[in-house]
Parts: sequence; structure tokens; C-alpha cells
Amino acid sequence: MTRILGIDPGSQRTGVGIIDVDAAGRVSYVHHQPLVLLGADDFPQRMKLLVLGLADLCREYQPHEVAIEKVFMARNPDSALKLGQARGAAISAVVLRDLPVHEYAASEIKLAVVGRGGAEKQQVQHMVGLMLNLKTKLQADAADALAVAITHAHVRATANRLGLSARQAWGRK
Amino acid sequence: MTRILGIDPGSQRTGVGIIDVDAAGRVSYVHHQPLVLLGADDFPQRMKLLVLGLADLCREYQPHEVAIEKVFMARNPDSALKLGQARGAAISAVVLRDLPVHEYAASEIKLAVVGRGGAEKQQVQHMVGLMLNLKTKLQADAADALAVAITHAHVRATANRLGLSARQAWGRK
Repeated sequence: MTRILGIDPGSQRTGVGIIDVDAAGRVSYVHHQPLVLLGADDFPQRMKLLVLGLADLCREYQPHEVAIEKVFMARNPDSALKLGQARGAAISAVVLRDLPVHEYAASEIKLAVVGRGGAEKQQVQHMVGLMLNLKTKLQADAADALAVAITHAHVRATANRLGLSARQAWGRK
Repeated sequence: MTRILGIDPGSQRTGVGIIDVDAAGRVSYVHHQPLVLLGADDFPQRMKLLVLGLADLCREYQPHEVAIEKVFMARNPDSALKLGQARGAAISAVVLRDLPVHEYAASEIKLAVVGRGGAEKQQVQHMVGLMLNLKTKLQADAADALAVAITHAHVRATANRLGLSARQAWGRK
């Protein structure tokens, strides 16, 4: 059993989703929650909340691997900067714990979860709920965090079947 | 004597500059170096190099406070994202050590170092060398890191004279 922590970084709210995947590639739900960062006094304190929040979750749930959405392009430089900061802080928190981090593009996540790289956000949300047998509707950041974790679980399972590393299976170096 | 760590974040190369400031606001040079991140295998490993590099410098030089340039707007979303990530990782590294982080806009730094908010980069580089009695020409990232540290030193000294916190002296909450 491998435990995967999925992260959907945001500077106001970072979504976190945790799943387990067995050797056959079957996924099961473990936990999800938002890390709400708006309460902090200033930007550095927000980053601290994010890093400490992730450190707490890692201690409590002991994930083995981390998956995070790869961002190619944001809407505008201002939102790109904010998103980048949250993403840099989140990755710092987990690499410091020596967890391997795997990055997936939005289109790769949609392909893995819905079967179509151009799928709508709502379809992803819906499929994540179905795949993990969740009774209640997920918020967008929780769904995105669980979706990237599921993507990594599938890539890992394929890799295991083929005797490759997850990076090789996904066509990376 | 207060030791200030200035950081000029970049995703390929992050500049670091360390100065001391005495009660009268006189600054003296301690150290500068680039943290070169390009050697890392992938982006998460780059963030790890950055965070561990800053942690090493904090252990070795024991700064009391940190100053970092505030970025309002980058040229384009792609460079904003990269810069943001490095900035988020750098801030994480120092807030985790409970160091107070002060952010200054580029115009505030130019005003503090050159006396003119619209000064050229080269003037900043030149003035930093003069103020710290450096014999050799600084690289741009080292000059920027030392410049933001000098800015904070001046704001701190003004604050001390007025019996205010650095944030209050600079017109912040």
C-alpha cells in the first residue's frame, strides 16, 4: 500500500487530498482538507501557515509520495506570482521531509481521471467523488488535490506493471 | 548589532547578502554568495537546494532578520510563476526558523540605496559597493540581495530613532 498526498496550491487556500493505492492500482480515500491561509497577518506568515500545515499533515498521515499540479501558464502575472509562491512553499515543505514529488499537468490529470484531457472542472470533481466512493460533494480545491493524487496512483500502477519508475511510465526522463 | 539576511530570489540563481547594522544605523559587509539551483534534476529538487542552502547560511551566519524584495508585477505569467515559486520557497526556509521577514518594493530599495525610486540597476550595484566598502564589482543578484538588506537596515535605524517598529516607520500597519 502506498499513501499519496495530493496538493492543490493556492495563496489563500491550499487543497490537500490523501489516498492509498494498492499494488493493483486500486485507490481508496483517506483524508482531505483545505489549508486556509487568509487568517495570517502578512504574506510570509501565510507561507508559514502553509508549510507548518503540510508538515502537520505529513506527520499525522505519513504519506510516501506527493503529487502536485504542474502549472504552465496562469491567467496573468499577478496571479501567477501568487500561485507560484504558494507552490514553492508547498514543495519546500514536502521535499524537506525527503518525500518524492511528482508533477502533473492539468491535461494529464483530466486524462487520468475523466479520460479526456480537455474535460471540464465539474467532470473532474464528479469522477473523483465516484472513484473514491465519497457521499458528499467535494469543494473544488479538495477535488483537485485528490485528482492529482489519483493521477499519480494510476501512473505508479502502470509503472509497476511495466517494471518502470513513475517518471519513465509517463514518458519523462 | 543586528545581522540582516537579504535575499534576491530567482529560480535558477538566488542571491544572498548578509550585513550587520549597529544601533546608529551603520552597515558593514558580512557575506554574499549565489545559491545556484540549475544543477538540480527537476524543479522540486531545485526548491530543496534553495531551502537547504538558506538553512545552511542561517546556521552559519545566524541572521536576526530577513529582507526580501516585494514583487508587484513580473514581465509575464511564466516568469512570474517561476519567480513566485523561488520566492515562496525562500520565505518558507526563513519563517520556519522563526526569523521575521520584511518585504520591500523595488522602488523603496532604490530610494533607500540611491536616493531615487527610479534609479538604474547599475547605480544600485555601484552604491551598494560604496556603502559596504567592497573592492570588487558585485554580480547583479548579490547587489540586489545586499541592497534589500541595506534598505531594511535603514528602515530599522529610523524606526529605532523614532521608537517605532520597522513596519510602522515604513508606513505599514
